[in-house]
Amino acid sequence: MAKPKKTPRPKAVTPKGFRDYFGTEVTERKTMLDQIAEVYHLYGFEALETSAVETVEALGKFLPDVDRPNEGVFAWQEDDSDWVALRYDMTAPLARVAAQYRQDLPAPYRRFAMGPVWRNEKPGPGRFRQFYQCDADTVGAPSVAADAEICAMLSDTLEAVGITRGDYIIRVNNRKVLDGVLEAAGLPDTDEFAHVRGIVLRTIDKHDKFGDQGVMALLTEGRKDESGDFTKGAGLETAQVELILGFVNGRQDSNATTLDRLAELVGEVQTGVEGVDELRQIAELLEGQGYGPDRIVIDPAVVRGLGYYTGPVYEAELTFEVTDEKGRVREFGSVAGGGRYDDLVKRFTGQAVPATGMSIGVDRLLAALRATGRIGSKAQGPVVVTVMDRDRMGDYMAMVTELRQAGIRAEVYLGNPKNFGNQLKYADKRESPVAIIQGGDEAERGVVQIKDLILGTKLAESASVEEWKDRPNQYEVPRGEMVAKVREIIESYT
Amino acid sequence: MAKPKKTPRPKAVTPKGFRDYFGTEVTERKTMLDQIAEVYHLYGFEALETSAVETVEALGKFLPDVDRPNEGVFAWQEDDSDWVALRYDMTAPLARVAAQYRQDLPAPYRRFAMGPVWRNEKPGPGRFRQFYQCDADTVGAPSVAADAEICAMLSDTLEAVGITRGDYIIRVNNRKVLDGVLEAAGLPDTDEFAHVRGIVLRTIDKHDKFGDQGVMALLTEGRKDESGDFTKGAGLETAQVELILGFVNGRQDSNATTLDRLAELVGEVQTGVEGVDELRQIAELLEGQGYGPDRIVIDPAVVRGLGYYTGPVYEAELTFEVTDEKGRVREFGSVAGGGRYDDLVKRFTGQAVPATGMSIGVDRLLAALRATGRIGSKAQGPVVVTVMDRDRMGDYMAMVTELRQAGIRAEVYLGNPKNFGNQLKYADKRESPVAIIQGGDEAERGVVQIKDLILGTKLAESASVEEWKDRPNQYEVPRGEMVAKVREIIESYT
Repeated sequence: MAKPKKTPRPKAVTPKGFRDYFGTEVTERKTMLDQIAEVYHLYGFEALETSAVETVEALGKFLPDVDRPNEGVFAWQEDDSDWVALRYDMTAPLARVAAQYRQDLPAPYRRFAMGPVWRNEKPGPGRFRQFYQCDADTVGAPSVAADAEICAMLSDTLEAVGITRGDYIIRVNNRKVLDGVLEAAGLPDTDEFAHVRGIVLRTIDKHDKFGDQGVMALLTEGRKDESGDFTKGAGLETAQVELILGFVNGRQDSNATTLDRLAELVGEVQTGVEGVDELRQIAELLEGQGYGPDRIVIDPAVVRGLGYYTGPVYEAELTFEVTDEKGRVREFGSVAGGGRYDDLVKRFTGQAVPATGMSIGVDRLLAALRATGRIGSKAQGPVVVTVMDRDRMGDYMAMVTELRQAGIRAEVYLGNPKNFGNQLKYADKRESPVAIIQGGDEAERGVVQIKDLILGTKLAESASVEEWKDRPNQYEVPRGEMVAKVREIIESYT
Repeated sequence: MAKPKKTPRPKAVTPKGFRDYFGTEVTERKTMLDQIAEVYHLYGFEALETSAVETVEALGKFLPDVDRPNEGVFAWQEDDSDWVALRYDMTAPLARVAAQYRQDLPAPYRRFAMGPVWRNEKPGPGRFRQFYQCDADTVGAPSVAADAEICAMLSDTLEAVGITRGDYIIRVNNRKVLDGVLEAAGLPDTDEFAHVRGIVLRTIDKHDKFGDQGVMALLTEGRKDESGDFTKGAGLETAQVELILGFVNGRQDSNATTLDRLAELVGEVQTGVEGVDELRQIAELLEGQGYGPDRIVIDPAVVRGLGYYTGPVYEAELTFEVTDEKGRVREFGSVAGGGRYDDLVKRFTGQAVPATGMSIGVDRLLAALRATGRIGSKAQGPVVVTVMDRDRMGDYMAMVTELRQAGIRAEVYLGNPKNFGNQLKYADKRESPVAIIQGGDEAERGVVQIKDLILGTKLAESASVEEWKDRPNQYEVPRGEMVAKVREIIESYT
């Protein structure tokens, strides 16, 4: 008789492009998000949590990479034939909410949202298909005072999580100025020029990568990169691109002179004039509140890749240097950005609803805090109560209960207690400060052994040897003094 | 020429079975989860956050309702032909993680996980397709000390979030005892009896709903319910069901007498004897740590619907009464539960890994806290600085900046300022304690008007009229004293 076919065992793997977060990876992010939420709350923003799932219809097609409008989301069809998808950002759900609850929400509506978003993209190193976003937006505020407020809040937020003033800069620009410049360059905002304007936008968004020459090549005849690959050019005239580059490089020594230069560039073009005026208002409001150009500055080089922005755009950059994985020293770069998008809610209601907001790249900002040493110091594990005598588990559990009631993180060893070495290895893996040991002999005498597990680490750090070298690494104390002694040891190192 | 066809506007709707959470709905849940996490951390549990997406293969088919093993998840096929799905609980991802990282994780591994899970089920009133779970599990601990620890932690957790001692009870049972009873009743754990044992399990899990008579009917000849619908019976003998019901109703006045009664029922059946012995150990460990039967009690009536439990099972019930939506007074009921499942990791590795853990129904527990008035008091909104003069937006923004720097939540009105009544309506909707008003006249005189918006509410609460009736509801103060006066008003009501 044939053997019954065995079902193969399932593979224990994270799906491709996803990852798991352990211990401090979770709690450090949470701490940072809590600090951010506190600032948002102080500014009057309210929490909103939408579900992970949206109808495909409501989500729309606003992914950053407009070359592939139909891709990028995880979507599936419901039994009743509705297509739904996982949200790819926090802005699309907000636009849906602002339309759906427009009768009930306060107007203007300031809201923040924190949580994972999903992108169905090719995963790469450090590039995952689920990641956190942390957004704050104001819906229904036509005035650029709303944009200025978001920029000020972004500045406060960066400092609240631990980025030092001087280590970041928030740069502000205005799509209307760019529109004015493009119109002045003979590329007005009409259907005929929509395609080439899109190319110009995405190309100058990468100005810091390509440089003036690269942008000139890409927007005129085309560009051959270092590997020899040729990218077809957009076919503009040199004079047109010069005007555009003049705009991108328009930042001067002060906001006032930058604004004058931009006014020159847009000339009489109405949109451009409006845009420069809005930037002037933003600069004045921010300077009036004490946010000077050391924190927030007008800079026409900021473009933002997204097509949906209609007014001010802003970007926070960390200016300190880090060494990347290839050993190159470079500026840390962008960690947050946003802008005004007056048409997203209109998709649903037909009525324009002015909105502006920003998104913080949570993983990027966490990486920055790690790079500057603000987070990532070793977390202290729990006290481990070892098990010398399986029959006295009740005694050991009473010890952890006492420690916990005193607010000291503690565990009893719950594995097989036979091999005591394994218990100490466990305490080591748990980064325990202290292990408690009580065999039958100690129990009879009413004492416990308290093993100091930090000392070894301290002695290994040569600088502190002198301070610690005469310290014992184990203490015998009466059972009744266990909690006090444990606290004393832990506190002596902090 | 034909008119170009208009694309219809997308509908702004939450997908069927999903919902949005606003403001305090988000923050109250967060506060509760933070309190829970603090207890878990104290017990030595580490955070784990897996992604929302798992391979269908890794998830397995462990949904509670085993009658429909292939349904219940949101799944879709990846381009590269892997099927993936949204997690339906936190246990399946834990089993995957425990197998995948078994070389690196501490053993035993205590972990907690909090976050949304998704069920592709027919939505109903109060029944959503995305909801929060909050789990804690110990993987790799064979001893029932691990189960006792989870029960103690659950007790501490309920009290930490605000459930008063005496308002809850954690009931503990053991599947092995049930197995022993079933074997004694002539239904041994073999393939032949697997189906009928499943029916017995699910039927007695609903004992509190059907009562003894209902269970007897359902397990023997069948049962006709109030509406006249007939449910086919399982075809057991009356004597068999009597033995089972004797078990379900086996709880006595004390843990000791309950355990004696269970020992009688299982007789010489090995599994049953083992199960009773484990329960006896759990009871002793818990009582030794001070968790008496007023908090945690042995109760054979607890069954838990899930098929995968292999040892102790436990359930936390809130015993206070609430009035349900149909006006009936009833016990609040179950808010958390769990048990030992020694086979889930084995699916991946072939090696049995003992594990035990619990899951808290986050929405149920929040509802309980609201029902007891522990949360849900009106949150105070931000101070609203109104805009009397559009050109002095800088002055108004300076006011909110000052307030925020003093730690007072504040906003400037960012809507169209033309209609002042709308600004006060806005402040009302925002539940603002105070509105700040400064027209041109006040600005010239260097003063602001501070409007007390709490007073009206206080006066409406008749009991406090005497206390508040002579208070003014508006103050004029020098601009420099604005922050101090606002703080004084807010603090006078708290």
